Amino acid sequence: MIKTPKESLTILTDVVLPGETNPLGNLFGGELLARMDRACSIAARRHSRQIAVTATVNHVAFTKAIKLGSVVTIEAKVSRAFKSSMEVYADVWVEDRETQEITKVNEGIYTFVAVDKSGTPIEIPQIKPETELEIARYDGALRRKQLSLILSGKMKPAEATELKALFS
Amino acid sequence: MIKTPKESLTILTDVVLPGETNPLGNLFGGELLARMDRACSIAARRHSRQIAVTATVNHVAFTKAIKLGSVVTIEAKVSRAFKSSMEVYADVWVEDRETQEITKVNEGIYTFVAVDKSGTPIEIPQIKPETELEIARYDGALRRKQLSLILSGKMKPAEATELKALFS
Amino acid sequence: MIKTPKESLTILTDVVLPGETNPLGNLFGGELLARMDRACSIAARRHSRQIAVTATVNHVAFTKAIKLGSVVTIEAKVSRAFKSSMEVYADVWVEDRETQEITKVNEGIYTFVAVDKSGTPIEIPQIKPETELEIARYDGALRRKQLSLILSGKMKPAEATELKALFS
Amino acid sequence: MIKTPKESLTILTDVVLPGETNPLGNLFGGELLARMDRACSIAARRHSRQIAVTATVNHVAFTKAIKLGSVVTIEAKVSRAFKSSMEVYADVWVEDRETQEITKVNEGIYTFVAVDKSGTPIEIPQIKPETELEIARYDGALRRKQLSLILSGKMKPAEATELKALFS
Amino acid sequence: MIKTPKESLTILTDVVLPGETNPLGNLFGGELLARMDRACSIAARRHSRQIAVTATVNHVAFTKAIKLGSVVTIEAKVSRAFKSSMEVYADVWVEDRETQEITKVNEGIYTFVAVDKSGTPIEIPQIKPETELEIARYDGALRRKQLSLILSGKMKPAEATELKALFS
Amino acid sequence: MIKTPKESLTILTDVVLPGETNPLGNLFGGELLARMDRACSIAARRHSRQIAVTATVNHVAFTKAIKLGSVVTIEAKVSRAFKSSMEVYADVWVEDRETQEITKVNEGIYTFVAVDKSGTPIEIPQIKPETELEIARYDGALRRKQLSLILSGKMKPAEATELKALFS
Repeated sequence: MIKTPKESLTILTDVVLPGETNPLGNLFGGELLARMDRACSIAARRHSRQIAVTATVNHVAFTKAIKLGSVVTIEAKVSRAFKSSMEVYADVWVEDRETQEITKVNEGIYTFVAVDKSGTPIEIPQIKPETELEIARYDGALRRKQLSLILSGKMKPAEATELKALFS
Repeated sequence: MIKTPKESLTILTDVVLPGETNPLGNLFGGELLARMDRACSIAARRHSRQIAVTATVNHVAFTKAIKLGSVVTIEAKVSRAFKSSMEVYADVWVEDRETQEITKVNEGIYTFVAVDKSGTPIEIPQIKPETELEIARYDGALRRKQLSLILSGKMKPAEATELKALFS
Repeated sequence: MIKTPKESLTILTDVVLPGETNPLGNLFGGELLARMDRACSIAARRHSRQIAVTATVNHVAFTKAIKLGSVVTIEAKVSRAFKSSMEVYADVWVEDRETQEITKVNEGIYTFVAVDKSGTPIEIPQIKPETELEIARYDGALRRKQLSLILSGKMKPAEATELKALFS
Repeated sequence: MIKTPKESLTILTDVVLPGETNPLGNLFGGELLARMDRACSIAARRHSRQIAVTATVNHVAFTKAIKLGSVVTIEAKVSRAFKSSMEVYADVWVEDRETQEITKVNEGIYTFVAVDKSGTPIEIPQIKPETELEIARYDGALRRKQLSLILSGKMKPAEATELKALFS
Repeated sequence: MIKTPKESLTILTDVVLPGETNPLGNLFGGELLARMDRACSIAARRHSRQIAVTATVNHVAFTKAIKLGSVVTIEAKVSRAFKSSMEVYADVWVEDRETQEITKVNEGIYTFVAVDKSGTPIEIPQIKPETELEIARYDGALRRKQLSLILSGKMKPAEATELKALFS
Repeated sequence: MIKTPKESLTILTDVVLPGETNPLGNLFGGELLARMDRACSIAARRHSRQIAVTATVNHVAFTKAIKLGSVVTIEAKVSRAFKSSMEVYADVWVEDRETQEITKVNEGIYTFVAVDKSGTPIEIPQIKPETELEIARYDGALRRKQLSLILSGKMKPAEATELKALFS
C-alpha cells in the first residue's frame, strides 16, 4: 500500500504560557523541541499505524524567537518512508493577533522507527509525495539518511552515492 | 464585518503521556479541561483578533475515558458572537491506532470575552454559521446565554424568552 | 444511610506561582479548572467512599481575574446525590494579604459518577442539606440535571417537569 | 497584637496523580516538600500579613509512603513567632477511601521570615498557643531555633541556654 | 567494603526558568527542595547500590534568593553511612555569568534508607571521609541522628551521649 | 583569549520520574531534548560569558531507550567556537544501579549564538581542543556548519570546501 504525506498531517496549535518560557520571556527551546516531538510522533503513527519511537532529530533551526502569549502552530507530515523508519518534517508558524498573518519561525526534521509490541522494527507502507515541496523533501530524505549514517559512523562517505553527487 | 465559524477553527492534536493521567491511567479530567480552554481561547482570539479571556465553562460532558497513549484531537470553533462575548464549541476525538477510526469522547462549551489592553470589553465581528451543525449551535447559543444569566442571578426566568419557548 | 454536605467538605488552599499564570499574569483558566476538578473529585469520593470519575462540568463562571501571588481557596461540597451520580459545588475565594478580607472570584458545578473497580456505576448514600445555601443548591440540582440531559439530547424539554415549572 | 495559631491554619487537600509519583509509584518526596512549602508559606502570610519567604526547613520526617491516588491533607499552622521570623508546623495526613479513617504520614517544621517590598525583615505579631499540642510546639520552638543557629555556626552551644537545659 | 564520600558525588547543574519561580521572580523554595531531593537520592543510590528512599530532611537553610535565569549547581555527597541509613549533604551554588565567580546560596542535609525490592531496610557499605570538610560532616552526623531521634520521640535526651557532650 | 572545552563542561545528573516518561514507560524523547538543551545552553554560557540562545539542533541520536527510574547524566561541552556561534556536544549516559557500570545512550549536537542584551550577536573567545575526542569534534564542526548552511539554503554545495573534501 502506498500512502501520501497528507494522510499523516498532524496539526498542533497551542499558546505560549509563562510556565513555558525562558528567562528572556520567549518560548523555551526545549519546550518547543518537545512539542515538535509530540506532533511528529503522531504523524509517524498515523502513517505506519504502529507504535513509533523517536530515532533521531536531524535538523531543527530556530530562526525567530517566539514571544510569550503567541499562538504557535506545528504542522508535521511524513516526508519519506524507508523500510521501518520514517522521516517527518515539522513546520512551525506563529500568527499575528491583529492581522492574522502567519510567519514561519522554525523547521525541524525528525526520524522515527515503527516497532511492534516487543520493540522489534516492523515494515511500514511506502509514501508518494504530491506537492512540489513534498517531492523536494522526499528527494532530500535519502541524502539526509546517508549523512546521518556517516555522522554515526555506520556508513563510509565513499558509499554515500546520493550525497556524493551533491558535491561533484 | 461578518465572519464564519470555519475562520476560527483551531486544531490541537496531542498525545496522552503518563504525567497527564489520573490514578486509573486515563487522561486526567483537569488536564483535558485545560487543553480545551487553550484551544477555545485561540478560536476566540482568531475570531475577534483581540485578547480573549475565559468567562464561563457552560457544559463539558466526559462520555468516554481517554486511555494513556491515546492521540487526542480537539477542534474548537466560535459558534456565536454577541456584543463582546463569544460562545466556543470544542469537540474532542480519539483515533484508533490500527484502524485510524475516530470516536468522539467529549464535548465542551466555553464563553470568552474580548478585551482591550486595559481589560475593557470591546466589540467583535458577528458570525454567520454555514453547516447544519453550525446553524444548530448558533441557534442554541442564545438559549444557553439566557440560561447562564439565570443561573448567575443576572436575569429572571420570565425574561428569558428564547428559553421559555423551549418548554411551552 | 443519609449524609450531609458538610461531611464531604474539601478545602484546597494554594498560591498562584508564575508557572500557573496566563500571558496577562493572572491564574490560567485551565489551571483553575484542574484544581477545581481535583477538589470536587475528593468531595465526591468522601461522600460516596467509592472511586469517583468526572461526568460533566456544568457551569463555571470566572467573575474576577486571580492575580499572580494570590492565595486561592477552593471549597468543594456535594450538593445533591442521585442514584450513582453526585453534583458537587466548588466556591473559589481569594484573600487580601493585608486585611485578610476574602472575595469570591469563581464558582463551579461539577458532576461525578461513583464506580466500582470494573468501572460500573454503583449506588451511593443520599444527602440531606442543612444550611439555607445547601438547601437552595440541593433544590436546583434536579433542574440542572434535567437541563444537562436536554443539552445532551437524552431528555425532551417536555419531560423536564422541574425545569418547565421555572418558566411558567 | 497577639494572635493564635488557629488564625493561620491553612488546609491543602489534594490527590496524588501519576505525574507526582516516584519510580516506586508513591508520592515523590520532592513534590511533598514543595506542597508543604506552599501550605506553610500561606500560614506564615496569614499570621504576619506580610510577604513571607522560606528561611529554613528544620525537620521533615517521611514515616510512611503515600500511594498513587491517595487523598493527602496538609495542615499548616504558625507555632511560634519571633521578631520577624516564624516557625510553621505542617502535619500531613492520608485518608482511607472506604473507612475515611485518617493516618498521619509526615510532619515538617519550616521557618519563614516576613519582609517588606524591599526585602527587609519586618516586625510581626506575637502568638499565644491555645491547645496542649500548640503549647508543646511553642515551647520547643526556641530550642529548635537555638539548634538551628548552632548548626549554622551563628551561636555557640554554651550560649544555647534553652537547649542545654534539655540535656542536664 | 569501605567507600569514600567522593564515590557518591552527584552534580546537578541546571537553569532557573520562569515556570520554576515564585511570585518574587526567584527560584521557588519547593522546587529547590525537590531538586536537592533528586540529587541526594542519586548520591545515596550510588553509595548503597540499592533503592534509596527519603527518610528525613534535617536542615535546609535558604541564605540567598536565587534569581530567574541563574545557573544553579547542586553537589550532593553521602557524609556518613549507618546500618541501612545514610546522611547526604547537598551544597548549592550559583555562578555569575560575567565573572564565573560562584557563591554558595543554600545547604541541605537529607537522610535516606536503603531498601530491597520488598521495602525492607538492607545493610550498606560504611564510609571513610577524606577531606577536612568531609571529616567534620561525618563527625557531626551522629549528633544530628541523635537529635532527629529525640525530636521524633524515639530517644530520650539523656541517652544522646554525643549530643550531651556538645553542651557540657 | 583562548579557552578549552573543559572550561565549559556542564554536568546534569538527574533521575527519570513517571511524569517524564512516554506511554512505553521510558524517558519521553521531548523531555530528554529539553534537558540536553538546558545543559548545552549552560556550557555555551560558561564559554562565552554571554546570554546564549539556541540556534540549531543538528543531530541527536536516540540509540537506547532510557527506563523509568534510571539515573541519567548529561555532559555538555563546547566543541568549537566560531565568530559569535558555538557548537556544543552533549553526551548522555545511564548507570546500572548494582554495578555502577555506565552506558552511553544518546548523543546530541546543538549550536548556540551569544547575544548582548539587545539580542545582537557578540564576539566570543576561541577554543583549543585538548583530548583526542575534542580534536575530532573540533575538526568535524566546520563540516557540520557548512552542512547546516547548505540544508538551510544559505550556502551552495560547491562552496563547502571542507565538506567536499570528505567525499573525494
